[in-house]
Amino acid sequence: MGLSDFAQATLDAPADADLPLAFHGTIIHSLTPQQVEIIEEGLIIVGSNGIITHFHKNLPLDKLDSFLVEHDFTPGSLNIQMLKRGEFLVPGFVDTHNHAPQWAQRGIGRGQLLIDWLNKTTFPHESKFKDHDYAWRTYTSCVKGFVRQGITTACYYGSFHGPATKILADICQKLGQRAFVGKCNMNRNAPDYCRDMTVEESLESTRDFIDHVRRIDPNFELVTPILTPRFAISCDGEVLAGLGQIAAEQPDLPIQTHFDEAEQEMEVTKQLFPEFKSEADLYDHFGLMTDRTILAHCIFCGEYEMQRIKERNCGVAHCPISTSTGGFFGVAPIREYLRREIKVGLGTDSGGGYSSSILDAMRLAFVISNARATATKGKDPELSLQEGFYLATLGGAQVCGLEKKIGNFGEGKIFDALLIDTVSDKYRGIIAPIEDEDSTETIFEKFLMTADDRNIVDVYVKGRQIK
Amino acid sequence: MGLSDFAQATLDAPADADLPLAFHGTIIHSLTPQQVEIIEEGLIIVGSNGIITHFHKNLPLDKLDSFLVEHDFTPGSLNIQMLKRGEFLVPGFVDTHNHAPQWAQRGIGRGQLLIDWLNKTTFPHESKFKDHDYAWRTYTSCVKGFVRQGITTACYYGSFHGPATKILADICQKLGQRAFVGKCNMNRNAPDYCRDMTVEESLESTRDFIDHVRRIDPNFELVTPILTPRFAISCDGEVLAGLGQIAAEQPDLPIQTHFDEAEQEMEVTKQLFPEFKSEADLYDHFGLMTDRTILAHCIFCGEYEMQRIKERNCGVAHCPISTSTGGFFGVAPIREYLRREIKVGLGTDSGGGYSSSILDAMRLAFVISNARATATKGKDPELSLQEGFYLATLGGAQVCGLEKKIGNFGEGKIFDALLIDTVSDKYRGIIAPIEDEDSTETIFEKFLMTADDRNIVDVYVKGRQIK
Ligand SMILES: [Zn+2]
Ligand SMILES: [Zn+2]
Repeated sequence: MGLSDFAQATLDAPADADLPLAFHGTIIHSLTPQQVEIIEEGLIIVGSNGIITHFHKNLPLDKLDSFLVEHDFTPGSLNIQMLKRGEFLVPGFVDTHNHAPQWAQRGIGRGQLLIDWLNKTTFPHESKFKDHDYAWRTYTSCVKGFVRQGITTACYYGSFHGPATKILADICQKLGQRAFVGKCNMNRNAPDYCRDMTVEESLESTRDFIDHVRRIDPNFELVTPILTPRFAISCDGEVLAGLGQIAAEQPDLPIQTHFDEAEQEMEVTKQLFPEFKSEADLYDHFGLMTDRTILAHCIFCGEYEMQRIKERNCGVAHCPISTSTGGFFGVAPIREYLRREIKVGLGTDSGGGYSSSILDAMRLAFVISNARATATKGKDPELSLQEGFYLATLGGAQVCGLEKKIGNFGEGKIFDALLIDTVSDKYRGIIAPIEDEDSTETIFEKFLMTADDRNIVDVYVKGRQIK
Repeated sequence: MGLSDFAQATLDAPADADLPLAFHGTIIHSLTPQQVEIIEEGLIIVGSNGIITHFHKNLPLDKLDSFLVEHDFTPGSLNIQMLKRGEFLVPGFVDTHNHAPQWAQRGIGRGQLLIDWLNKTTFPHESKFKDHDYAWRTYTSCVKGFVRQGITTACYYGSFHGPATKILADICQKLGQRAFVGKCNMNRNAPDYCRDMTVEESLESTRDFIDHVRRIDPNFELVTPILTPRFAISCDGEVLAGLGQIAAEQPDLPIQTHFDEAEQEMEVTKQLFPEFKSEADLYDHFGLMTDRTILAHCIFCGEYEMQRIKERNCGVAHCPISTSTGGFFGVAPIREYLRREIKVGLGTDSGGGYSSSILDAMRLAFVISNARATATKGKDPELSLQEGFYLATLGGAQVCGLEKKIGNFGEGKIFDALLIDTVSDKYRGIIAPIEDEDSTETIFEKFLMTADDRNIVDVYVKGRQIK
């Protein structure tokens, strides 16, 4: 048979962005942490509102046209892309933890202990965001850089500056990336040039930022403000209490902070808050341990804290790049979190992590899990390829409380997706060559382990192509 | 002042490949493991034979023309490139260990124990190189892929096939990459379809391969045949003895093998050769522990073996990508090797390692060394940026016995070099943006930690541009 009439009509007609989008071919997504579904003859149709209207898992090419006709489509009434061998759709990547102001600082200052790295490298850099032109320029580069790498949802820590953080929210909105954006709260233990000077200023600027986002995106369709106490070292009890109060008043706001990240950080926290026996108790006291809370790192959690995290249904942002290259080799017990069904996703922690790629974060998650498997003599087996992919997509969506909307494909879900090309010369980069006998599983494995942003050729958020 | 007359003449005239090459601007190279020299106003001139004839470390732009005139050059008598801010030269990368037949297999089969991975994933794949067309196609893609990533010297294990390995040598020669190429010896513990069937066949095919390379490159100016017993598990005593004899007869040949790579491998080796108390004793007995020997991995060496390696002056190929993602988290004691002044370089171990990039290998070397620093409570401090760069360049050259020719810059050395561009939009990739106030040290750090092959814009081997 020749080309589908529908595919031919799409080729003939000039693209009309208002027509429904459709894809026929290989579609890969996670169902559970252990289960990746590889669909070879799938069909997805996306309405002009970005919602998936049809998702069929077994539709051979020779049944495509009759299926579409039965569903009241006519040739030319949708833009359909026929995916060839080596091309496939996956859900967009979710980066559950990164620092937008550190975009231009990636790779710098590796090997310093956390507090030294903050004081010597990071705070001087973040203070540059008082300059609005600099913020526009750098945040535009940052958001575009993440989008290019297939990150359709990003959880950003901003700097402490309200205006610059509004600019970041505006840019995400404009460029079409789904984002949690937080004005970073820090009113102590940072130089004066890089902190909120009073409790009131810290909270007021947070409320003002939230109001701004409610104005530009009232239903948080793309951008959501997130409460962002940097960590307890940089926030005194009053700021934490104030943020807890905002969280209680505005229950649609997520919350993010750093948690049990480094021994040095934990010691200083204990000195500052001797009344709490753990960081879990500390944040819980201030109303910040909720099912909307994203805890970055969680490396040193013992039984007690794991139980609290599970009870409160917080999510864990696993950031293996930064925790393996900072001044300490931190091996978070991800296998144990998965066993307990605690929500876990991946974070690049860019710029503490040198890479801003979720593929790199996934590969380093394998390294970290391998270290833990060896250290525990196999009691905590290393992460499988399936689990790595899950953390990068559906796991991240769960951490963000977005798993009903994104993270994998289904009718009624939002189309946040990546079109992967592993074979065209134009996009090849340095991915392992695809061989004639390679199964779709093998092609998928080569993508996960050896591809880069060059193989992520189209990026969609809410059905809109943003790369 | 305007442009240098020499630079103007180069811009005006059509490039003539026979003219000497020259570069003025930033040049960065290693002097020792700890010492990186950053030259901001340097001049390198390369003769048409690929040898560096002039290397000046402090020549301001306004003195350039008069200097050249004094040295008997006239405008138009050399091709000079003026490097702008964000561009610089570094020595080419040396990959001291990889497997060319695994090029299309990168990323596949992670997490299996070594012997299982060989039997299930690798041997079936390597057997495809009995097909000469496949070998041509795949080895061309492999060599081009490494060159694109700035690897100017590669130590290749071939498959056991003599003809395919000749093809690999021919391709390196043709594409201009400096390479050690080895026909892999393996006459047992591999399926019949993937091994030498007799001792004689194994040795004869090795001698035949060496003769071939002596014909195509009599002085080993680019390609050097390397004796390559895969490891003692796959070579019986007769093959090892025969290779030792060839090594004694032809003292210009280097040698490579896998060494103390995995617990499983070490146990099987002990069962096969119970008469030797260590792999060092085993290979030494057969005359294969020499100052021309490259030992891959060296993860489990104790005091005795470290002493033997040092006495025999063998080199270590450190391959942190494969040893951290295979079925065991292997942390080689690189700090201890450096302390003892044992020669150490980096290997991608592509395809056991998922990445074929020396930049990735260097970043994973930091991860591994960080794991060791934490495990030893700081007794073995993590590798510095300087040490990582050294391993990727001069250290690798020492492992290959090529440090008098390549590895850093000097008059009389061969020009194997990379032109790095961190700033042009065309080449930007996802490197951290360069900021106005960034020092050359910071730009260099951003390159090492966040760049990829897109920032390696020109690649030179022996003065010839091959990318
Ligand atoms: Zn962070
Ligand atoms: Zn190897």
